[in-house]
Amino acid sequence: MSLQEEFFTGISKISYVPGAGAADVLCFKHYNAEEVLMGKRMEDWLRFSVCYWHSFCGTGADPFGFPTLHRSWNEGSPMEASKKRIRAAFEFFTKLGVKYYTFHDRDMAPEGSTLEESNRNLDEMTDVALQLQNQTGVKVLWVTCNLFAHARYMNGAATNPDCHVLAYAGAQVKKGLDIAKKLGAENFVFWGGREGFHTILNTDVGAELKHMANFFKMAVQYKEKIGLKCQFLIEPKPKEPCKHQYDYDAMSVIAFLKHYGLEKDFKLNIEPNHTTLAGHSYEHDIIMASSFGMLGSVDANTGSPDLGWDTDQFPMDIRNTTLVMKTIIDQGGIQPGGLNFDAKVRRESADPEDLFIAHIGAMDAFARGLRNAVRVVQDRLLPDLVEERYKSYSHGLGAKVDEGSATLEDLENYIKKNGEPKATSGKQEKFESIFNHYI
Amino acid sequence: MSLQEEFFTGISKISYVPGAGAADVLCFKHYNAEEVLMGKRMEDWLRFSVCYWHSFCGTGADPFGFPTLHRSWNEGSPMEASKKRIRAAFEFFTKLGVKYYTFHDRDMAPEGSTLEESNRNLDEMTDVALQLQNQTGVKVLWVTCNLFAHARYMNGAATNPDCHVLAYAGAQVKKGLDIAKKLGAENFVFWGGREGFHTILNTDVGAELKHMANFFKMAVQYKEKIGLKCQFLIEPKPKEPCKHQYDYDAMSVIAFLKHYGLEKDFKLNIEPNHTTLAGHSYEHDIIMASSFGMLGSVDANTGSPDLGWDTDQFPMDIRNTTLVMKTIIDQGGIQPGGLNFDAKVRRESADPEDLFIAHIGAMDAFARGLRNAVRVVQDRLLPDLVEERYKSYSHGLGAKVDEGSATLEDLENYIKKNGEPKATSGKQEKFESIFNHYI
Amino acid sequence: MSLQEEFFTGISKISYVPGAGAADVLCFKHYNAEEVLMGKRMEDWLRFSVCYWHSFCGTGADPFGFPTLHRSWNEGSPMEASKKRIRAAFEFFTKLGVKYYTFHDRDMAPEGSTLEESNRNLDEMTDVALQLQNQTGVKVLWVTCNLFAHARYMNGAATNPDCHVLAYAGAQVKKGLDIAKKLGAENFVFWGGREGFHTILNTDVGAELKHMANFFKMAVQYKEKIGLKCQFLIEPKPKEPCKHQYDYDAMSVIAFLKHYGLEKDFKLNIEPNHTTLAGHSYEHDIIMASSFGMLGSVDANTGSPDLGWDTDQFPMDIRNTTLVMKTIIDQGGIQPGGLNFDAKVRRESADPEDLFIAHIGAMDAFARGLRNAVRVVQDRLLPDLVEERYKSYSHGLGAKVDEGSATLEDLENYIKKNGEPKATSGKQEKFESIFNHYI
Amino acid sequence: MSLQEEFFTGISKISYVPGAGAADVLCFKHYNAEEVLMGKRMEDWLRFSVCYWHSFCGTGADPFGFPTLHRSWNEGSPMEASKKRIRAAFEFFTKLGVKYYTFHDRDMAPEGSTLEESNRNLDEMTDVALQLQNQTGVKVLWVTCNLFAHARYMNGAATNPDCHVLAYAGAQVKKGLDIAKKLGAENFVFWGGREGFHTILNTDVGAELKHMANFFKMAVQYKEKIGLKCQFLIEPKPKEPCKHQYDYDAMSVIAFLKHYGLEKDFKLNIEPNHTTLAGHSYEHDIIMASSFGMLGSVDANTGSPDLGWDTDQFPMDIRNTTLVMKTIIDQGGIQPGGLNFDAKVRRESADPEDLFIAHIGAMDAFARGLRNAVRVVQDRLLPDLVEERYKSYSHGLGAKVDEGSATLEDLENYIKKNGEPKATSGKQEKFESIFNHYI
Repeated sequence: MSLQEEFFTGISKISYVPGAGAADVLCFKHYNAEEVLMGKRMEDWLRFSVCYWHSFCGTGADPFGFPTLHRSWNEGSPMEASKKRIRAAFEFFTKLGVKYYTFHDRDMAPEGSTLEESNRNLDEMTDVALQLQNQTGVKVLWVTCNLFAHARYMNGAATNPDCHVLAYAGAQVKKGLDIAKKLGAENFVFWGGREGFHTILNTDVGAELKHMANFFKMAVQYKEKIGLKCQFLIEPKPKEPCKHQYDYDAMSVIAFLKHYGLEKDFKLNIEPNHTTLAGHSYEHDIIMASSFGMLGSVDANTGSPDLGWDTDQFPMDIRNTTLVMKTIIDQGGIQPGGLNFDAKVRRESADPEDLFIAHIGAMDAFARGLRNAVRVVQDRLLPDLVEERYKSYSHGLGAKVDEGSATLEDLENYIKKNGEPKATSGKQEKFESIFNHYI
Repeated sequence: MSLQEEFFTGISKISYVPGAGAADVLCFKHYNAEEVLMGKRMEDWLRFSVCYWHSFCGTGADPFGFPTLHRSWNEGSPMEASKKRIRAAFEFFTKLGVKYYTFHDRDMAPEGSTLEESNRNLDEMTDVALQLQNQTGVKVLWVTCNLFAHARYMNGAATNPDCHVLAYAGAQVKKGLDIAKKLGAENFVFWGGREGFHTILNTDVGAELKHMANFFKMAVQYKEKIGLKCQFLIEPKPKEPCKHQYDYDAMSVIAFLKHYGLEKDFKLNIEPNHTTLAGHSYEHDIIMASSFGMLGSVDANTGSPDLGWDTDQFPMDIRNTTLVMKTIIDQGGIQPGGLNFDAKVRRESADPEDLFIAHIGAMDAFARGLRNAVRVVQDRLLPDLVEERYKSYSHGLGAKVDEGSATLEDLENYIKKNGEPKATSGKQEKFESIFNHYI
Repeated sequence: MSLQEEFFTGISKISYVPGAGAADVLCFKHYNAEEVLMGKRMEDWLRFSVCYWHSFCGTGADPFGFPTLHRSWNEGSPMEASKKRIRAAFEFFTKLGVKYYTFHDRDMAPEGSTLEESNRNLDEMTDVALQLQNQTGVKVLWVTCNLFAHARYMNGAATNPDCHVLAYAGAQVKKGLDIAKKLGAENFVFWGGREGFHTILNTDVGAELKHMANFFKMAVQYKEKIGLKCQFLIEPKPKEPCKHQYDYDAMSVIAFLKHYGLEKDFKLNIEPNHTTLAGHSYEHDIIMASSFGMLGSVDANTGSPDLGWDTDQFPMDIRNTTLVMKTIIDQGGIQPGGLNFDAKVRRESADPEDLFIAHIGAMDAFARGLRNAVRVVQDRLLPDLVEERYKSYSHGLGAKVDEGSATLEDLENYIKKNGEPKATSGKQEKFESIFNHYI
Repeated sequence: MSLQEEFFTGISKISYVPGAGAADVLCFKHYNAEEVLMGKRMEDWLRFSVCYWHSFCGTGADPFGFPTLHRSWNEGSPMEASKKRIRAAFEFFTKLGVKYYTFHDRDMAPEGSTLEESNRNLDEMTDVALQLQNQTGVKVLWVTCNLFAHARYMNGAATNPDCHVLAYAGAQVKKGLDIAKKLGAENFVFWGGREGFHTILNTDVGAELKHMANFFKMAVQYKEKIGLKCQFLIEPKPKEPCKHQYDYDAMSVIAFLKHYGLEKDFKLNIEPNHTTLAGHSYEHDIIMASSFGMLGSVDANTGSPDLGWDTDQFPMDIRNTTLVMKTIIDQGGIQPGGLNFDAKVRRESADPEDLFIAHIGAMDAFARGLRNAVRVVQDRLLPDLVEERYKSYSHGLGAKVDEGSATLEDLENYIKKNGEPKATSGKQEKFESIFNHYI
């Protein structure tokens, strides 16, 4: 097998051209993979990944419109198309210069008429994938099983009222874990698109949550059995396609994991477009997950705050990327997770080159964010101002509160002695103004 | 002391008049306190409570307008007004026929210039309260401390960057717990209106959460020390006044409690207006909290789904009240919690009688909801249809999944033997249509 | 041609059974077509219509899932399927007992590879439709052209940056108007799903609006030329599929129509699910359109206020249906418009009977709404209370203000003479409580 | 009278220091008033204005909290405070270096117990204002009347069900117009905070809209009578304090103005925080108003897209300020309007210097936006790409469509001859990527 059939003719390897002009949209102006910042190469801070589904399976169809994206690699019988598609994908990965990709089982190989046939298709296609991975050095950031698109999952997979459906999902996950091992995936993601409800009237929430927890326990058990080393991730989303998804946001998933004793076995894959759909600010779940030691990976995309559905746009806002990279620096990096572009070109962006332009624009946006965050962290101005705000907890009563040894009586005595505290300015505008200096 | 000064002249004890006409808004058409449904009196299912702050301290001021509600009981010096106010309140409770009330420490007695003075004010006023409680039989559903209105709390109470402020909050809570004991409060609520952030740029989330957890632990410890028997409740709210509050919704609070080992010591006080602000449906957090065994009490109010702030309106939607009461019946009641009307008359509803009309309308709405829910539960049609959906988990592989003993291999074998599951209709419209039959 | 092939076996004509029980979901409990209320039969107040696209073309696919609804009438070649589909549809209309249906040109007949072929398909299929209309008495409430699904329209139809696309849309509308005439459609709807933008960066808003206005003017001109008598309607929607649609809500469309001098030629087709997506309450646009004399027809459906996309659910909320019907009664009816069920069964509602259950549930919900609204109007209690509020405009200065002859000097003089006005209670809770009496 | 009492001690005139560091938050790094860009000085493009209410009357109170901002200029009797306040304000204006301010009548002088007393207060205070204006060269960008804070306006001013209240509002506006003339205000704003409804149940929308229109007509008539030259502006807001405000957004106001024949007499004052509350993107109403030739002035602030109320934050997002300034450049400037900082420091930002830091940060954000927009416009890359998209309307059929002379038959003939159009890439990501180059 070879890469000789070229799908993106006229586009060669994307290079770093720091002084390029506004019209030059097919080069990196900020992302310089090998450049070292704070002891790590940019590519190791950023660990970019291209997603298979939007960029290679996507058709541009939407709830009101037919396909608009005509991709030559999707023509032919399902297996023929799969084989062309993977070559197109690896051509794209290598031209773009990313080291990771992500996929659902059903993106990689078509579903057959039986589980056995689907599994055979996967075996055949992952042989090809493994060969291309070895040839190019591109690796799997994560695998996931599509437990939401097939009609059988319409009422849920792990939370389906019918255990027969749950069983099907389990069989699919078993194979997914086998594949993850075969391809050396560094993570495995669970996104419960159909795990939730449309109306509470027909739903037994308690039973569904318990089944979902037991389902995850089976996956953990099988992972250990086969010696799969990858990190397990749950990806929160509040709604869509369900009216309500149990994995609503970071805190909902943490509550679920802790309730069922699963918190050691999972971290979170945070997608900011899902965060904003849940009514939070862009960076919220990344910061909350990180604060709870649960940030495992990031789906690097964006929505529009004025829209109520998952638009999966390429992230282009430098303020946002700076806040994300600041959090990642603060927790020492995102590995074994990464920044996966779970983003799709608009259905109107019908030229194949738009796939490149979009990824490059987003990679540059994150590279700018990284550079900004490094300056914020290294200058120490903002971190020191924050530390200063909390300095009362480093000594005396504050230290006792911080370590958990103070009592209400201690607090009352302190006030009886010291009286009314000062109301200290939070200086939000000063922080915002300084932050603007870096972006 | 006596009740002889009458504040609501012209209004006598509200009675149950089942056949009353549309224009009769000063009687109950549905709420019949003593009537027994499913083995409990209506007043024991509903456990209504009137809140002190909106109904007796509220002025009608809003962010764009000055006070509109002129209440004779709020005139005079702060302590004089407090004494008139409590008599007006008890006149209202007894005329309305509710058995419970709720209050913040600072509603009951004015804040003094020192903690000591504030505490003395509270001592004096709770003596009056106790006397009125004994006279009337009205009891305290819950007490809470106002840790958000004073300027000292602008940057948080338990999460303030300055431990001096946290100490003040602790001293205040200590007194609050003493009062709760004195008045026989059945619950004690924590609402963290300022526990959160306005900008992540100046905030150390990890430190703040730890301090809040330690603060709660001190309260638990002191409660045990003084032998206070009441239930502790946390009231989630997503935002307002903070941009982001840590107690965002039921699941966020559950995550927090479980992370810090506090889940045995607290339940949740769910306010549906807060639930809808968090992007959920009206009944969502009541159902989720109940599913996790954490539903302790309800703030019976409503917002408008098209508005993004806390309007604290009186709940008048029968569909909503039916769903709430169905959940309460399913969990066997809400005691020692209750249905607290954390609701305010609109600032345009300036007549004192509007306070009665609003409470009566809401009590009737919940009484209709209770009657509907009882019919739903007793008819068994809807519960049986739900049970039927999940019947596969009662035997065979389903039972193994349900109890947690199945493996992915079991699931795969099941599919290899049984093949593709049937996609069974969820019949949402049928459930909705049947539900409509009961409301 | 005949109706002999039966698609909904086991379901016979739906009848009115007023005393039916909760489990009886295949009869009307409230809708009694012939019953006369306030001088009109229920069917004339309600003018129900079934939509072709959701109920007969819909597959259950969503952005995350494949088709779930297997409809035997959609099998075979496109034209064969079209012929089966229309027979299934008329079987449904007649069994359900509705007198109207609505369709897009491309629902009725498949798009061909050229405009000419598409038109021939339409000619053939509308011959069938006409025959079935004559046979059954079912009529066309409205026709619309699908100017959004084909890839050519991805950047807009009447607002496309490429006039070649606008020309295609115009040719399609010309044929649509011809069909409307042929089938005796009582209305013709324009819904501009792609008339808007995804990013302002690539968009000339002024040019696009002007082209859209000119496009509408051509349609008006052609309608007059061919002597088509039907009412033209624009259907507002704020977003989805576009990030921003020009026809955002009722007021946006009114602004557009008035700016371009088109307000005499169009009324509005209001869909409450679109209204709530625009941030308004359910009934808002119906009331605003009616207040401006622009309410032409209603798409009778609902969304979920906690969801940010168009769910097109069947309307089941009695409060909402009562408010809609109250407005319709107040303006003397909705003819020549109607209540079109632009609603789809959930993709999980996979049984053919669910189509009936959903329509029946919604028709009963509107019948209850109509009965409630009639009581509200006939009792006169609420209307009189409203009238009383505004009585100051019936005489003296108020009458001058109302007729437009007062001046600021008059107003100042009035205040100099009469001083401070009284702040009168708005009595919202009283109005809500009384309203609840009727529902 | 003199400026000798200094309120902002330790802060001298803010100067432009282009190379200043991150910690230097009390100088301009980007705003250079005298610098000429595209033929205008920065101060003439930007026309910054400081608002009186937030910055000099604001106390930091919010719906859950008491005042936090202790301003020495607000101490003393109401008139004494007013006199100190205006000196503080002019000290601030001149130290900051802005040329304009804005105020409500009741910010400038306290409301008296009668209209006459209120008017005398205004006369006295505007004498002071005029003197300070002459002394400093600072001018009034706009005046507005506060027709929402007083209890009398709780049910509306121009839309009040009681004409007595409308009369009071009219008397107040008459005086407001007199003051506007006296002080040489360049604009006069109407913001209808209470013009709308809380429940449709007690409201006659048609009557209220007509009264509001007649009210505006009286104002226009009086303005002409006294020879006042300023521009009239309506400021849209969707909700808050009302559940629904009639001036919902730009398009709603345009519809209203056109319906009542007022569109020649008014333009719009767009506040982006209101725009986002209406469900639009930040720049939406500025662009729509400008497209309809109705953009008169801008309230330069921001909200948080995840919050549902008016936070009136200082605008700090460079992407937003760039889009606003691009629109202003495209329409040739904003005069006689300006950029008014209808923004308040957070209630936690309790230091007087925070007022400076906030304004400086926002002025620099707009200066960066202006510089970016100038580069976008002068480079011609983006404008040319947009023009290229619409080039088909410059000739042939496109030109006929554009001028309004084409017919549906012309369009059909074109398609019959030219067949299927090409679906051209909208290239959103390319536009975004290029735009990022400039910011």
